[in-house]
Amino acid sequence: MSEPSDPKRGQSLWQGRFGDAPAEELLDFTESLSFDRRLAADDLAGSRAHVDMLARVGLITEEERAVVAAALARVEAEIDAGTFTFLPLDEDIHTAVERRVTELAGPAGAKLHTGRSRNDQVALDLRLYVRREGRVMAGRLCDLMQVLLRRAAEAHAADVYLPGYTHMQRAQPVMLAHHLLAHFWALSRDVDRLADALDRADVSPLGAGALAGSTLPLDPGSVAADLGFARPFENSLDAVSDRDFVAELLFVCALCQVHLSRLGEEVVLWATEEFGFLKLADAYSTGSSMLPQKKNPDIAELVRGKAGRLIGHLTGFLATLKGLPLSYNRDLQEDKEPLFDTLDTLALAGTAMAGLLDTATFDYERMRAAADTPSSAAADLAEDLVRGGMPFREAHALIGKLVRESVERGIPLDELIMTEPKLGPDALAALEPGASVRRRTSPGGAGTASVAAQMEAARARLADQEGRLAKGA
Amino acid sequence: MSEPSDPKRGQSLWQGRFGDAPAEELLDFTESLSFDRRLAADDLAGSRAHVDMLARVGLITEEERAVVAAALARVEAEIDAGTFTFLPLDEDIHTAVERRVTELAGPAGAKLHTGRSRNDQVALDLRLYVRREGRVMAGRLCDLMQVLLRRAAEAHAADVYLPGYTHMQRAQPVMLAHHLLAHFWALSRDVDRLADALDRADVSPLGAGALAGSTLPLDPGSVAADLGFARPFENSLDAVSDRDFVAELLFVCALCQVHLSRLGEEVVLWATEEFGFLKLADAYSTGSSMLPQKKNPDIAELVRGKAGRLIGHLTGFLATLKGLPLSYNRDLQEDKEPLFDTLDTLALAGTAMAGLLDTATFDYERMRAAADTPSSAAADLAEDLVRGGMPFREAHALIGKLVRESVERGIPLDELIMTEPKLGPDALAALEPGASVRRRTSPGGAGTASVAAQMEAARARLADQEGRLAKGA
Amino acid sequence: MSEPSDPKRGQSLWQGRFGDAPAEELLDFTESLSFDRRLAADDLAGSRAHVDMLARVGLITEEERAVVAAALARVEAEIDAGTFTFLPLDEDIHTAVERRVTELAGPAGAKLHTGRSRNDQVALDLRLYVRREGRVMAGRLCDLMQVLLRRAAEAHAADVYLPGYTHMQRAQPVMLAHHLLAHFWALSRDVDRLADALDRADVSPLGAGALAGSTLPLDPGSVAADLGFARPFENSLDAVSDRDFVAELLFVCALCQVHLSRLGEEVVLWATEEFGFLKLADAYSTGSSMLPQKKNPDIAELVRGKAGRLIGHLTGFLATLKGLPLSYNRDLQEDKEPLFDTLDTLALAGTAMAGLLDTATFDYERMRAAADTPSSAAADLAEDLVRGGMPFREAHALIGKLVRESVERGIPLDELIMTEPKLGPDALAALEPGASVRRRTSPGGAGTASVAAQMEAARARLADQEGRLAKGA
Amino acid sequence: MSEPSDPKRGQSLWQGRFGDAPAEELLDFTESLSFDRRLAADDLAGSRAHVDMLARVGLITEEERAVVAAALARVEAEIDAGTFTFLPLDEDIHTAVERRVTELAGPAGAKLHTGRSRNDQVALDLRLYVRREGRVMAGRLCDLMQVLLRRAAEAHAADVYLPGYTHMQRAQPVMLAHHLLAHFWALSRDVDRLADALDRADVSPLGAGALAGSTLPLDPGSVAADLGFARPFENSLDAVSDRDFVAELLFVCALCQVHLSRLGEEVVLWATEEFGFLKLADAYSTGSSMLPQKKNPDIAELVRGKAGRLIGHLTGFLATLKGLPLSYNRDLQEDKEPLFDTLDTLALAGTAMAGLLDTATFDYERMRAAADTPSSAAADLAEDLVRGGMPFREAHALIGKLVRESVERGIPLDELIMTEPKLGPDALAALEPGASVRRRTSPGGAGTASVAAQMEAARARLADQEGRLAKGA
Repeated sequence: MSEPSDPKRGQSLWQGRFGDAPAEELLDFTESLSFDRRLAADDLAGSRAHVDMLARVGLITEEERAVVAAALARVEAEIDAGTFTFLPLDEDIHTAVERRVTELAGPAGAKLHTGRSRNDQVALDLRLYVRREGRVMAGRLCDLMQVLLRRAAEAHAADVYLPGYTHMQRAQPVMLAHHLLAHFWALSRDVDRLADALDRADVSPLGAGALAGSTLPLDPGSVAADLGFARPFENSLDAVSDRDFVAELLFVCALCQVHLSRLGEEVVLWATEEFGFLKLADAYSTGSSMLPQKKNPDIAELVRGKAGRLIGHLTGFLATLKGLPLSYNRDLQEDKEPLFDTLDTLALAGTAMAGLLDTATFDYERMRAAADTPSSAAADLAEDLVRGGMPFREAHALIGKLVRESVERGIPLDELIMTEPKLGPDALAALEPGASVRRRTSPGGAGTASVAAQMEAARARLADQEGRLAKGA
Repeated sequence: MSEPSDPKRGQSLWQGRFGDAPAEELLDFTESLSFDRRLAADDLAGSRAHVDMLARVGLITEEERAVVAAALARVEAEIDAGTFTFLPLDEDIHTAVERRVTELAGPAGAKLHTGRSRNDQVALDLRLYVRREGRVMAGRLCDLMQVLLRRAAEAHAADVYLPGYTHMQRAQPVMLAHHLLAHFWALSRDVDRLADALDRADVSPLGAGALAGSTLPLDPGSVAADLGFARPFENSLDAVSDRDFVAELLFVCALCQVHLSRLGEEVVLWATEEFGFLKLADAYSTGSSMLPQKKNPDIAELVRGKAGRLIGHLTGFLATLKGLPLSYNRDLQEDKEPLFDTLDTLALAGTAMAGLLDTATFDYERMRAAADTPSSAAADLAEDLVRGGMPFREAHALIGKLVRESVERGIPLDELIMTEPKLGPDALAALEPGASVRRRTSPGGAGTASVAAQMEAARARLADQEGRLAKGA
Repeated sequence: MSEPSDPKRGQSLWQGRFGDAPAEELLDFTESLSFDRRLAADDLAGSRAHVDMLARVGLITEEERAVVAAALARVEAEIDAGTFTFLPLDEDIHTAVERRVTELAGPAGAKLHTGRSRNDQVALDLRLYVRREGRVMAGRLCDLMQVLLRRAAEAHAADVYLPGYTHMQRAQPVMLAHHLLAHFWALSRDVDRLADALDRADVSPLGAGALAGSTLPLDPGSVAADLGFARPFENSLDAVSDRDFVAELLFVCALCQVHLSRLGEEVVLWATEEFGFLKLADAYSTGSSMLPQKKNPDIAELVRGKAGRLIGHLTGFLATLKGLPLSYNRDLQEDKEPLFDTLDTLALAGTAMAGLLDTATFDYERMRAAADTPSSAAADLAEDLVRGGMPFREAHALIGKLVRESVERGIPLDELIMTEPKLGPDALAALEPGASVRRRTSPGGAGTASVAAQMEAARARLADQEGRLAKGA
Repeated sequence: MSEPSDPKRGQSLWQGRFGDAPAEELLDFTESLSFDRRLAADDLAGSRAHVDMLARVGLITEEERAVVAAALARVEAEIDAGTFTFLPLDEDIHTAVERRVTELAGPAGAKLHTGRSRNDQVALDLRLYVRREGRVMAGRLCDLMQVLLRRAAEAHAADVYLPGYTHMQRAQPVMLAHHLLAHFWALSRDVDRLADALDRADVSPLGAGALAGSTLPLDPGSVAADLGFARPFENSLDAVSDRDFVAELLFVCALCQVHLSRLGEEVVLWATEEFGFLKLADAYSTGSSMLPQKKNPDIAELVRGKAGRLIGHLTGFLATLKGLPLSYNRDLQEDKEPLFDTLDTLALAGTAMAGLLDTATFDYERMRAAADTPSSAAADLAEDLVRGGMPFREAHALIGKLVRESVERGIPLDELIMTEPKLGPDALAALEPGASVRRRTSPGGAGTASVAAQMEAARARLADQEGRLAKGA
């Protein structure tokens, strides 16, 4: 006998063929309502577009369309008001909505799922969600870029430089604006990748049915247009089993979080007593439950740590996809949780970092002092020798030898420089405070003038990207 | 001025040193209460042991101890009853508990955190959780092994065999019990690894403080004993920053879920029309919202797909740990969510698979028919030739040639076998139904007799493992 | 004393500052020559462009330029001929080339590295490599798409259909061409992503120096133009530490290999005795060392298995990048091996799958027979009822009930269909061989006519993509 | 017609059944000889044990055994001498060895593969390799632990302390020995895990055949004993498809490399100008091709970066295993490269770090100076108040307020401390140089006396572990 329909439990959409009710273990293990209910708005939008199409092609009457549309509106109101009652057999948001629509609209409601499967429906809902939330997240990244630009402009106006590092060893002085903009450009590539990913995701899968389309006169193109998609699917098997857009989003966000982790690492470093380049605002730091004096850069640490989380979501989802035959397999349900968590995490991380950077205080004096050391000018001295005709490799060896002597014999490097006949006292100009960034004029380089030009390019890039995202909206 | 203490918001444990209240973005991004509240029972157990120790070493009086213990009991009751009120500044469960204890116990409550930091406290709570939930999960795996054993015994009693596969091509017949036991042994290694991991995790970190221990006369050894740990920590820096036990659990569970995914893949395959070896009970299958005839093995698919999820959790957490300097860094907060989700997922997966296998119907006749084909005996024929003195490589080539001829000329293999002078009509004995598994007698092999012995070994192993886990409890 | 220069050992580029020679453990652990020598051609191309620029801006004379260019040509010839001698202290290809150029060109050779660091040099070489090999790989993917198209056209001409599957259960018949094209579209997205990634990688980093540019009058824009790059770097810190292009390539290839793994899984399935849809050519299968009858789809299995490998390369590299402060850190040396192996693996996998698919034999009859079963038409029957006015959910339940009855009472489904008053004998038309694909006419669907249109779209897409890649070349 | 046997090409072991020779693409894509030739010694050892068993059970004569054994010895000599000629169709080391043995030993050689498949053979070889190389690697880790112990003892004798950090902020002073031992304990858990993994891997799979054992009277138990394994396999399907031991090794090594990455990060930090706690020996550092003054901690950076590599290998291999049905599938060939590279990488990393730490110079004075700051004693002051009866939470707030005042008003903390009536001038004792570590006496803590005890425990642990590994050998 078929599963008895119990109004208190609801019923699954597919009970006709089944003799026994689902086991509790099955329901516990396979349910997705606990996380896919955040697709409710998307599910309702998709259903509205679907019934409009059904009416257009004559599969339902205008009256039926109106009745279902009213029921959908009522469901939306109930969900928004928190009065919607989910039943035990509402295994997902799609079942819950269809069940309620049918309760409200009777036989017309039972026509809602005509020519549709949860396979194309869930793919649609997730693409709608991605379109919506992807743009929100891109906006957060643009806000963070804006903060970087603002702090860079401020630092450039104050003519601040600090040591640039390779291998975390002081290498050559760079303008602080240059350093901040390095992070800006990385984020700008992220926004670019995100926009590309959103474009590629801009496909409506509705009309693919369970996997094969339909014998009914469905019109997927008009649904796509109605919902504002760039185009409908090309192949129904692909439409229900393609999760490239999820994988691509997970990658783009994971790489972006990796970029934030690099920025986070620097905030942590700069906020140490040892570096002392940065002081965090109290409102963006935390303390210790045991050590009264502590002031900790937790936001920066979590931004760094959560890069692991997002790498994990990407990895895990690719592993889930691996080896799946066509077309829809239930494994694909594993797309939603990593995606939701990834978008949430990155949006929160971007906002928290923007706040942190917006309110932090840079210690300009300490930065300059750390940069104005003789050894920071070693490469400049070698370049001076090159300008005088000495082959670079020879100049490098000569300066290297002076540095070694300075270390081994404990003599200040500038003394040795002055007494080196090939350099002579003029070389001291290279060691003057700020000389290194004033003299470094190659395009794209760390020097004062180059960075001013770069700042203009950065402003233009951000304006372009905000424009592209706005157009997509 | 310091953050004003607002009874409606609560206050952070560290507000003394801070001039401004935490920003909303900071609270949103760094809070862990939404997931660490499931550590409440562990936190309370740890606090009880801590105050008992404080009293033992004279840092609080017996009266104070009793007052705090009563407050802890009250907190536990409130949490169990769902009446505990969390406040906005309760950033984690530890803060919430201490805040409430102090409300209830006054100055004695303000002594609860003496000689303790959240750094050692959270490490303790998580180890208590792991000990508790790790055993529960191991029990679920043992239950699944029990089901495999039962189905294997049943199949062996019915003398069922099916094709064994390599490269998913039929290779040689194997007893169904042998096949089911192959999965049993993999799970048995998982339980073994889990028990090892739980042993290694059996260390109490309380007393390590923030990172360095204390000037107070704490007694970590007695706390460890009190809480039933095998030993206290050796090094306080290590105690607060060691998350090996989390990583090891994540690995053990990920590999176990990979094992389940292999079993899940086979359930999916066997339930196809094409294989037809298995029919799922209605209660452990699902249907389609669009295709009325469908009966789908969703549990097996999700078990397979969730292997990706657990691989992701492991990967992500290792990436989070990578490159962290000593000692505690806030990145470590990322330990809890992947661990909780991993333990939950694997426990649910184990239970769901146990139910599925317990209720599924094997199609013995179809299995036997698929195994009783002449080509399945090809290796046995080659071994017959070997027994007659022919070098194996030559025998392999001779039989291979017959198979090729059979395919190319469309002649049944058994006809060719009978007419091959080096084999002759006696060879047909090797082709009789079931001959292959009756004749395969090497230890550990797929034949009837070997498998009977193996079944005994499996029973003994499971009993041992259940015993080891029970002792740990 | 400085490391003595030994012509048999060579010397590191940086020995000036160092008192002791590098330890063997350091050389063994840090060397990259064993894998970066495949960048030799790119390194030489970059060096040629660099010295041309040095001459243009007057940092070297035209005579010096010519001498160095001749030495570079000689090095190229030696490497091509396999006569180039690498010395123990040639820690990487860049050191080896500069060392040899200096041997050949004397003081002019010692000017080669003027205004350049290995940091910008290695970034340049790797981008040149990616541009070159990325296009080769895209070409391989296009070849595979071409094979899929050809086999699809052939199958469509023969009017072949097979069961479409969801949850690996037979769901609805689909044209074989439709199924093959589903894989085509996935690959087409991969090629699209690859082209985007190559565009984004099309930046010349030369002129960024170690991290900060130079005080010399370098001209990065002209070098970029000379080497055919779309643009030079914007920010020198970013230029030497940006490995986004590697991460993006690793992702694009990993996802593509995941797509191939899905195709591989189907080849494995279809080649089983149980499915029997596909026979592999002998030249594209392997046998067993023990079982004479075996014919195994090893290519398809390795294509599937190697998806794990590429997921691992992506994951590992993202973990390596995580948390690195600016700018260049030696960790970045870990970019090359995963990238090289990923490009190699995917190119080989694409070629092997193209060969396998090109030579495999589809069993059209077996496919059709598997699709022509009454239950495959269940959804079509429900849609017939819908056309007659019955609400879909009711139609679904009615057909579901018939299926259940057929299973439970062992009565063939078509018998039950004929006797169901709401369906009647006319329903049998839906069960005729091939009816399902003939009647399925919705756009993008699995039916005969829809697929013909889709094939045209696929041809146009491939032509576009080949055009885009050719233009890039 | 069958593939013609060409002595210049060799032939595959399975050519009998095949009409066409393998395609080049197949050979290129599926070959494993390029990496599995490092199993040669293991393959020969396994073959020797196999033929000895064949003779014992009467499947070959003693004469045949001797002939084959002599051929195996000859093959070994040829491989050792580098004179062994690999042929194009030697797809793997197993084929190459058997082919050559057959050339040398004639019909007796053609009996070598009796009752054996490459499936059990390769599993055996890999387990032999793991046993051998796993121990070597454990030895390297013990050497590194030895160096840590030695440096710790030296530092303890010199009574050196430095700031302990949480969140990379100075928290409380710790003995340098304590800090070094924190890394020791992490490695000690790694060695423990490694030993457990090697024990679990100590199973001989030989005798499992292709998947099902054999009809021949094989004796797997005696082969296991002969090769020194703890036990033979229990289940032949499991024996040929179980790669748990590879996954477990990959995990253990990845986690260990993560531990090394934490140590590496600290070396990088401590070697900065800003921290200045550590000077690397010239022999264990590298320079810059452009910046003459640079001295870089490349070993520590690569140790850190390669943690990503090993995480990738682990992840990738788990993804490869996921969803594989029983029994052997060619995907499993992907086990060797990640395993070999992982063992190589970790062994090199351990050795390089041991050398680096052995030769580095700690700057004791700078460490002490960084630790002797008033704010480092904040917790000690709070604990003094606690000893005087003040509730800890109140003491924490009081000291926190002093710190805030000191920061905001720019007054040195010690001045404020002296004037705080609840603390008074006696509090200054807590601020004396080294007071913090002298007063911190809790077991396992960072103080002088506790660390002395800990050092003894560490020595005992290392001795135990070296003993366990030696016993295994």
